[in-house]
Amino acid sequence: MGLGEFSESDVIVELAKIFATDDPRILLGIGDDAAVIAPSEVNSVITTDMAVEGVHFRKQWSSAFEIGRKITAANLADLLAMGATPSHLVAAISLTGDEPLAWIVELAQGMAHEARRCKAPIVGGDLVKGSVVTISMTAIGYVKNPILRSGAQVGDRLYVSNIPGWSAAGWHLLSHGINPESLASSKQAKRGIQQFCAPEVSYEAARLMRNAHALIDISDGLMTQGAQMASASHVRCEFSAAKIEAIDEFADLAQLADEVNANVWDWVGAGGEDHVFLAAGKDLSGTCIGEVVTGDGIAIIGLEHVPQGFVHFN
Amino acid sequence: MGLGEFSESDVIVELAKIFATDDPRILLGIGDDAAVIAPSEVNSVITTDMAVEGVHFRKQWSSAFEIGRKITAANLADLLAMGATPSHLVAAISLTGDEPLAWIVELAQGMAHEARRCKAPIVGGDLVKGSVVTISMTAIGYVKNPILRSGAQVGDRLYVSNIPGWSAAGWHLLSHGINPESLASSKQAKRGIQQFCAPEVSYEAARLMRNAHALIDISDGLMTQGAQMASASHVRCEFSAAKIEAIDEFADLAQLADEVNANVWDWVGAGGEDHVFLAAGKDLSGTCIGEVVTGDGIAIIGLEHVPQGFVHFN
Repeated sequence: MGLGEFSESDVIVELAKIFATDDPRILLGIGDDAAVIAPSEVNSVITTDMAVEGVHFRKQWSSAFEIGRKITAANLADLLAMGATPSHLVAAISLTGDEPLAWIVELAQGMAHEARRCKAPIVGGDLVKGSVVTISMTAIGYVKNPILRSGAQVGDRLYVSNIPGWSAAGWHLLSHGINPESLASSKQAKRGIQQFCAPEVSYEAARLMRNAHALIDISDGLMTQGAQMASASHVRCEFSAAKIEAIDEFADLAQLADEVNANVWDWVGAGGEDHVFLAAGKDLSGTCIGEVVTGDGIAIIGLEHVPQGFVHFN
Repeated sequence: MGLGEFSESDVIVELAKIFATDDPRILLGIGDDAAVIAPSEVNSVITTDMAVEGVHFRKQWSSAFEIGRKITAANLADLLAMGATPSHLVAAISLTGDEPLAWIVELAQGMAHEARRCKAPIVGGDLVKGSVVTISMTAIGYVKNPILRSGAQVGDRLYVSNIPGWSAAGWHLLSHGINPESLASSKQAKRGIQQFCAPEVSYEAARLMRNAHALIDISDGLMTQGAQMASASHVRCEFSAAKIEAIDEFADLAQLADEVNANVWDWVGAGGEDHVFLAAGKDLSGTCIGEVVTGDGIAIIGLEHVPQGFVHFN
């Protein structure tokens, strides 16, 4: 169907250029009923993630490039969290017809940029009309021995690749209409907004965690997904407030939170979409923030005022 | 996030039950960051399709079961059109929060029903909030020698698995608010509406076309996708109006079109979403409706009044 003043086929020609690849594993890319990929000797891993305008992103907050990066990162991070090496992706996009061709091209460039970080080309897709922009991607990767969330063992330590919370901080500022320039902690504020719009996912950090017993992408927040790891592994995850507070960037987040009357623990404990990796194991890369003990559920030891949203996880 | 009165995790528990599989190739299904699939010795094939409420379906026209079947069929048909055997699917769904749990369960049951027709389990997904229901699926299959749309050769005959147009007929009736019971051709009208809501895709017919030189799912219509096959193969596709009119169900479609003042060739030539398969080759299964000749473009030989929409394909 026509999408505004240019046709769907015009758009597909542009996208095929942006997504062009000389990856020898891709036997057939965009242009037929489906893409064809050479076989792999190891297990394949598949994940899918959808982002909806007005819910996951807003055009007035994020550039098309950032939106494309963010949804691609969400998919890739899920593969890395299985210990897998991303191989290729497909994207299905609904457009309203009001987007200029340049906006669509930038969206695709953002996707291609993020996908290149993992050397995983975008090999196909679907373009349809809708009342809002919706982007759904599916990522395929390969792994010999997947790292599940169910592998945490009593005695393991818990590690994060970075501190979570920057994306939640950015969302707080954007949704409250706070201008980062108006703040003393404007540098931190800008970092939060940038991380909300297009998080810098530490794919390399996840690769360095491949000797973990359990690994998870904490896109729904440390507490929620720590609880999922605990439940799947039949153990209890105890995080240390002191250890989390000792992470370099915690002070930056706390300063920003104080200035905008937010609770930094809401950001660090419940904020997702940073795609920080949480691992359980021994002597892992990353920052140790707790340990796996007998029992069930999770806790942040030493946190005096547990944010309300967390109560039901205890 | 919460979706109405029940939580996302409640829905996921229900969906995991519906999509449960004992397929030994599925090493890990719903519940971790990604699903894990055993390796295959042959090439993999991947396709994705999105359906948007108000554009591709309407809740007042189609049951949730039918909507689930239709989007799943669209994905599976693309794999069959590559000569591939479907293996597994993932689904990303945005819900408004107004859908009762029973509606969501029926949607999933429709997906699972259609997927079972191809023995391809649904192994993962994403559930998000949006202002309209949007469903995106990705299907993976395996094939040793993919059948491309670019393989048509001069001297080949052109075959269809069935007559296209029933879905377009159904859409015509629904969008014009025509009650099938009010028509003399009510039986045909009901068939059209049923095919629009959930087309009965002839997966077996596609399997029987595996010795084709070229194969395509004509979900965007015979003329559009015949032109794509012609262009990709550097040949000309000539369809015979007489041969198409000789297909049993053409008379049924023509009778219905006459009664509702529609042009049957608009339905047969431009109607998609039936997921009819068009093949080029020698002595193929299906109904021969034309031949591949030297040149480019397409034509319906013997059609006196070419519907306007088709002019630009000549």
